[in-house]
Amino acid sequence: MEREREVVSVLHGGMIITMDEEQRVFRDGGIVIEGDRIKAIGQSAQILAEFSDVAHHILDLTGHILLPGFINTHVHSSQQLARGIADDVDLMTWLHHRIWPYESNMTQHDSYLSTLLCGIELIHSGVTCFAEAGGQHVSEMARAVSLLGLRACLTQSTMDSGHGLPPSWATRTTDQCIQSQKDNYDKYHNTAHGRIRIWFGIRQIMNSTPRLLIETRDAATQLKTGIHMHVAEIPYENQLVRDVHKVDHGTVTYLDKIDFLQSNLLAAHSVWLDNNEISLLSRSGVKVSHCPAAAMRMLGFAPVREMLDAGVCVSLGTDGAPSNNRMSIVDEMYLASLINKGREVYANGTTDPTALPAETILRMVTVNGAKSVLWDDELGSLEVGKKADIVVVNPSSWPMVPVHDCISSIVYSMRSENVISVMCNGVWIMKNKKIIHVDEEEVILKAKEASVELLKRAGITLPSRMNMI
Amino acid sequence: MEREREVVSVLHGGMIITMDEEQRVFRDGGIVIEGDRIKAIGQSAQILAEFSDVAHHILDLTGHILLPGFINTHVHSSQQLARGIADDVDLMTWLHHRIWPYESNMTQHDSYLSTLLCGIELIHSGVTCFAEAGGQHVSEMARAVSLLGLRACLTQSTMDSGHGLPPSWATRTTDQCIQSQKDNYDKYHNTAHGRIRIWFGIRQIMNSTPRLLIETRDAATQLKTGIHMHVAEIPYENQLVRDVHKVDHGTVTYLDKIDFLQSNLLAAHSVWLDNNEISLLSRSGVKVSHCPAAAMRMLGFAPVREMLDAGVCVSLGTDGAPSNNRMSIVDEMYLASLINKGREVYANGTTDPTALPAETILRMVTVNGAKSVLWDDELGSLEVGKKADIVVVNPSSWPMVPVHDCISSIVYSMRSENVISVMCNGVWIMKNKKIIHVDEEEVILKAKEASVELLKRAGITLPSRMNMI
Repeated sequence: MEREREVVSVLHGGMIITMDEEQRVFRDGGIVIEGDRIKAIGQSAQILAEFSDVAHHILDLTGHILLPGFINTHVHSSQQLARGIADDVDLMTWLHHRIWPYESNMTQHDSYLSTLLCGIELIHSGVTCFAEAGGQHVSEMARAVSLLGLRACLTQSTMDSGHGLPPSWATRTTDQCIQSQKDNYDKYHNTAHGRIRIWFGIRQIMNSTPRLLIETRDAATQLKTGIHMHVAEIPYENQLVRDVHKVDHGTVTYLDKIDFLQSNLLAAHSVWLDNNEISLLSRSGVKVSHCPAAAMRMLGFAPVREMLDAGVCVSLGTDGAPSNNRMSIVDEMYLASLINKGREVYANGTTDPTALPAETILRMVTVNGAKSVLWDDELGSLEVGKKADIVVVNPSSWPMVPVHDCISSIVYSMRSENVISVMCNGVWIMKNKKIIHVDEEEVILKAKEASVELLKRAGITLPSRMNMI
Repeated sequence: MEREREVVSVLHGGMIITMDEEQRVFRDGGIVIEGDRIKAIGQSAQILAEFSDVAHHILDLTGHILLPGFINTHVHSSQQLARGIADDVDLMTWLHHRIWPYESNMTQHDSYLSTLLCGIELIHSGVTCFAEAGGQHVSEMARAVSLLGLRACLTQSTMDSGHGLPPSWATRTTDQCIQSQKDNYDKYHNTAHGRIRIWFGIRQIMNSTPRLLIETRDAATQLKTGIHMHVAEIPYENQLVRDVHKVDHGTVTYLDKIDFLQSNLLAAHSVWLDNNEISLLSRSGVKVSHCPAAAMRMLGFAPVREMLDAGVCVSLGTDGAPSNNRMSIVDEMYLASLINKGREVYANGTTDPTALPAETILRMVTVNGAKSVLWDDELGSLEVGKKADIVVVNPSSWPMVPVHDCISSIVYSMRSENVISVMCNGVWIMKNKKIIHVDEEEVILKAKEASVELLKRAGITLPSRMNMI
């Protein structure tokens, strides 16, 4: 790796939206990458004058916009092969008759292909780092992430209790759940040139014994890593927690009671919270992954404005393909804006078109994303010393033209069509729309085949919506 | 034109979603186009056997999905150059300081370029027909639509009263408003080989005298054409109507009182309705254009499920670029599904993931769209005798793979990336992502320049969101 670290590249001529603390945007900016890190950033002229002589590669990006790589903080990469298997069905059908049979029948190779296919979609939408929500075979996720060149916090789907679990899952003990995650940590943490980190997972409160929660908390603290958990997704969940654990409101209140709310917890969704629970999240430094599409479809309106106002770090996630079905953080930015502007109508009688402005949304997918994955010392903004995770946007094609307000155009107009190149850890992983390290066509072909076989094995058949002849 | 009408083309090998009354989907379908109409449709093998000998062109579309061209029933094509000029601002700033100054300073050439640019985006998202919401220079819209090869119901923005209108608009009399629209009808109705129809426009109730409403109604009836009007957009509108016209609820109640609700009315948005007003729309056969993105951002949640349940014909629209900012009916399908599933949480305590299923959404952009533009005798489904307006989708790339449920995949997974070819009136207007009849790059370049000049002329300046250096 020594040689790679020494390569110096200069990207110049583009607009650079740094997302640094001073909110600097270089209209005609230059950035110098040495190995996997940013060595310098500034005006193009100055950067070229200083670094042209030592650069191995100089790339003119005139007319383009450069941003920090987007961070997608809630992704079920193992569910990519399940896109479209659970559309327009109620939650119980979704879980018991589609998702659990699908997940419990996944082979290692399915996990590998699913993460490859998911990763391709993530890269096309400008993502350089994602937080896995909890999937099946961490070894295979790690292999796919490593190959794609992405950065990820990988997590095993973890449940040690609950009703209606598939037979192959129902026998897992709490000790096994903890141990297998520690094993994953030992094998894969800090691999792929440091791009992979291993987190602990809690699928959700209804599939967790109190001991699993406590031991997960302690193991994560000991290993200085994060915990990814679905939190307060549906009213029924809160109701159950109230009944079982005798607390006032719901999951967050209970998690506070057992001292589980800590700054290394990434709480996905967090839709059904009262004001006290929002304060609890804020005080304890818990991070929230807001997934607008999945929330609208299946969960409800998260109190995003209230959380942000209370100082909670809220980032954005796509959730998994059977919950969304678009795995595009670009679309989630657009949705987060629309949904949270619209939601105000129920509080105030009218929507608030000024709510969650573009600059706030952009922070959610960059700096807040980095904080959410506990990696803000190296990610989330384009600054000297940080990792070179960069998205290159072409704003001069039909989805974005004209660009009168570059920040809002990124959030409201940009589509994945406009994301043309992506660098992660100083290495191009997509260039001019071409995924660099895997053969996209081959992955698509194999994923199609594997997904058909997997559905057969899982006994999942979908009713026909029209008259197929 | 005689020669063109005689050309016979066969498209075969693809899945054809006909959207006909029997909801037929040919897994391996063939379709024969003679001139501008569909001559035959059926199984590929049968179509090839019967028509191979007489066909001038035979196109193998194996692996693709064919659908009726999408119909976008609320488009401000004149506002395309204003994309991003009014993001994150309140409604009054939006209207008085951004949109009206922009629109009132448009030249004829601006209208032409704006509609060209808008049309390019519409075509890329699979639209073959759109209903203009009311723009500035109908002559120039018609010129652009004609050149692009699109189909449209064009409408002039019409206001004869109201507070705060720009000086150049404030002097228009009711008679002038009616006469200029009749003139447009005489000049442009049924032009562009029948692809252009001229409708009457009413901008909104707050900018209309009762005489304008009545005379518009009678002129449209006399000319057997439609009326496009923004209806019940914000609570303030209903309040004003209640105060001024002494009716129980709002705009719809008042329009019923003056006998304005007829089956040729296309009511855009229709967000703030009570149950009685939904019944009034249903009984009178008024069509509604639901614009999910614009509604969420600025208006509120339209009672779409209630309208559909009551038998109202609801179609989908994108609204204009400064209200949305994506002019993609593909994205609106996705949004319509999500938003209307989520909205149920306020009625029932939980979202309803089964609400507005994919097949309903698909009807909204095809058959309901055709009814909304009063053109369902020739548009909205792929059937013998109807116009050959066809979208070709490639479902084998990363945004859609895997496709387990082809109907829901079109609605929930498909993105404009997947729309590869579009035919309107028997003529390809986009093929393999290339817009056929205009030079896309040239339009983009000219539109950029014109939009900057227009904003200068209109005195519109946007605050900077970040620290631009």
